[in-house]
Amino acid sequence: MTATPSHPQGASRGDRPGRIMAREMAEQPDVLRRILDTGGPRIQDVARRIASRKPRFVLLTARGTSDNAALYAKYLLEIRLGLPCGLTSMSTTTAYGAHPDLTDVLVITVSQSGGSPDLVVSTRAAREAGAITLAVTNNPDSPLAAVSEYHIDIMAGPEKALPATKTYTASLLSLYLFVEGLCGGDGAPAKVLPDLAAGLLARQDEVRALASRYRFAERMVITSRGYGYPTAKEAALKLMETSYIPALSYSGADLLHGPLAMVDNISPVIAVVTDGKGGEALQPVLDRLRGRGADLVVIGPRAQVEQASAGFVLPTEGVAEEVQPLLEILPLQLLAYEVTIARGQDPDAPRALAKVTETR
Amino acid sequence: MTATPSHPQGASRGDRPGRIMAREMAEQPDVLRRILDTGGPRIQDVARRIASRKPRFVLLTARGTSDNAALYAKYLLEIRLGLPCGLTSMSTTTAYGAHPDLTDVLVITVSQSGGSPDLVVSTRAAREAGAITLAVTNNPDSPLAAVSEYHIDIMAGPEKALPATKTYTASLLSLYLFVEGLCGGDGAPAKVLPDLAAGLLARQDEVRALASRYRFAERMVITSRGYGYPTAKEAALKLMETSYIPALSYSGADLLHGPLAMVDNISPVIAVVTDGKGGEALQPVLDRLRGRGADLVVIGPRAQVEQASAGFVLPTEGVAEEVQPLLEILPLQLLAYEVTIARGQDPDAPRALAKVTETR
Repeated sequence: MTATPSHPQGASRGDRPGRIMAREMAEQPDVLRRILDTGGPRIQDVARRIASRKPRFVLLTARGTSDNAALYAKYLLEIRLGLPCGLTSMSTTTAYGAHPDLTDVLVITVSQSGGSPDLVVSTRAAREAGAITLAVTNNPDSPLAAVSEYHIDIMAGPEKALPATKTYTASLLSLYLFVEGLCGGDGAPAKVLPDLAAGLLARQDEVRALASRYRFAERMVITSRGYGYPTAKEAALKLMETSYIPALSYSGADLLHGPLAMVDNISPVIAVVTDGKGGEALQPVLDRLRGRGADLVVIGPRAQVEQASAGFVLPTEGVAEEVQPLLEILPLQLLAYEVTIARGQDPDAPRALAKVTETR
Repeated sequence: MTATPSHPQGASRGDRPGRIMAREMAEQPDVLRRILDTGGPRIQDVARRIASRKPRFVLLTARGTSDNAALYAKYLLEIRLGLPCGLTSMSTTTAYGAHPDLTDVLVITVSQSGGSPDLVVSTRAAREAGAITLAVTNNPDSPLAAVSEYHIDIMAGPEKALPATKTYTASLLSLYLFVEGLCGGDGAPAKVLPDLAAGLLARQDEVRALASRYRFAERMVITSRGYGYPTAKEAALKLMETSYIPALSYSGADLLHGPLAMVDNISPVIAVVTDGKGGEALQPVLDRLRGRGADLVVIGPRAQVEQASAGFVLPTEGVAEEVQPLLEILPLQLLAYEVTIARGQDPDAPRALAKVTETR
């Protein structure tokens, strides 16, 4: 692929393809450590102040990669706090001018840039409608942070690659610590993450071998359940943004309600198997896929990988299920990168992306 | 495609391919008329009783095609009633045992069969947690109807084809009348639908001509915004279930946040352009797609179709925006059917579907 006039800023021009994305993926252990070491107390403080206002419902607003981080927060909030949650359909406010009564509602807007006009408009409208508003962004000086009552800085440092990687894991960890704070927890299960993340990112050769499987794939299906489902969605988005392979993500349960017709030998399947209740709930789906002779690659614990066509073993012993999504996504980011390189494309130069997307 | 041992019941064996799906699609005008004529008063009564309990938040629970009907209801509830809504992540209850406090929360579960065990479990749990529960099903004798406090029968008659068609439009109309009832409206804008639906279904030749375009497509992208977005999702699901083409659906705003890299000359795009605010909000996306030289097929008003590569003109004059989704989906159901026939497959015999999917 060569640079074209519509070529976005920040892409590598003549440099090694994927240089920028590779560097930012590699920064993730340091980013996680920084959040734990210096961001934690501030996140705890925001959580304490919001908890005292006793929100009854949570609405999460985001787009793209941040939407997958928001979905992770939805699982955390529902499972750990028993708070009913919804993901905002933004056009109801921005296009249709809906004016819901948001008293007692916590509205969390997740956006790495904090600059997308529709997010700013819908967050401002939510605040006017009585919501407690929290912005989770990588830019404390952004318009989104300014219109929100509370702000959490995900501290990922400037992200230049167009496919977001470090801001995704930074958003997950920040949201995890926030929900822990709401629960009165100390976030101790997250302490193992930086070292484990470094260990996973060092296994790029294994991912490269796996990537050869998809060199000529015309489609992919990625499935999971529970905490791993946002990982499946984010992996599909990453693969599409970089390699342009149509990658479809489904919760395991939804996969059985229709799209399974597309699997078999037609489409390779990647299953993200969280070690815990999400992974248990996925077992019938995995059995069904194996029974149909699907090409099944598992990202998960060793015992699960051994029953699959191939896979990537995650360290899960002593890792709480709810923080596993921070690790699961790493080999899948690497996979998107390696598949793209293998197909002769440049992960730093997706053809249509701008870093701040101005939807209204 | 031939019948295999895993061939599901209800599929045509040796008959004309797609006979069952064709018959059920053709029944839709009669089903809509039946709901308007005889279901309306009962739906109004349910709506009145639920309105008197003043729900503050709505959770919608469904899977597959019903999930797209639930998303349509979410737009209606947010825009017309200003009620914040969420779509349930079912595994938080069924796998993780979350116990949210659902006082003042209306939980609407949509399921044509009313038989999926996870929907029954999660609805029962919601009722025990204080929710007002409403089941919207095609089977008043189903376990789901039994565990729910309120029930709406979508009156579509037995659905034998595996790809759901008439239960989708019947769910949309029932949900529309329910929300109208909550608003104190009489649902008059729906009265034009049966005749217009009959007129659209009579234009199968036009759809067949459009289908030839996708005879060899390896992927498709379907986009919309606002009320049309559930149509885009349902069209993608229908295409995947029947033809196995990987069809990706995005809200127009999300398309700009990443997957646009996959468009251009790589992937044909279908845009569902609702005549109203949703369609207006989609214009920048359509401009961008045209600017990139995408193969753009529009399902929408004549003026929009004329600016596209090809399309299918919908009658929108005098049709309220919020009921247009009931018409938009019809040419797309026909398209899924015709593309599947053109590819030498049988729309009645998707390889992996069972009519009642037993996810737990």
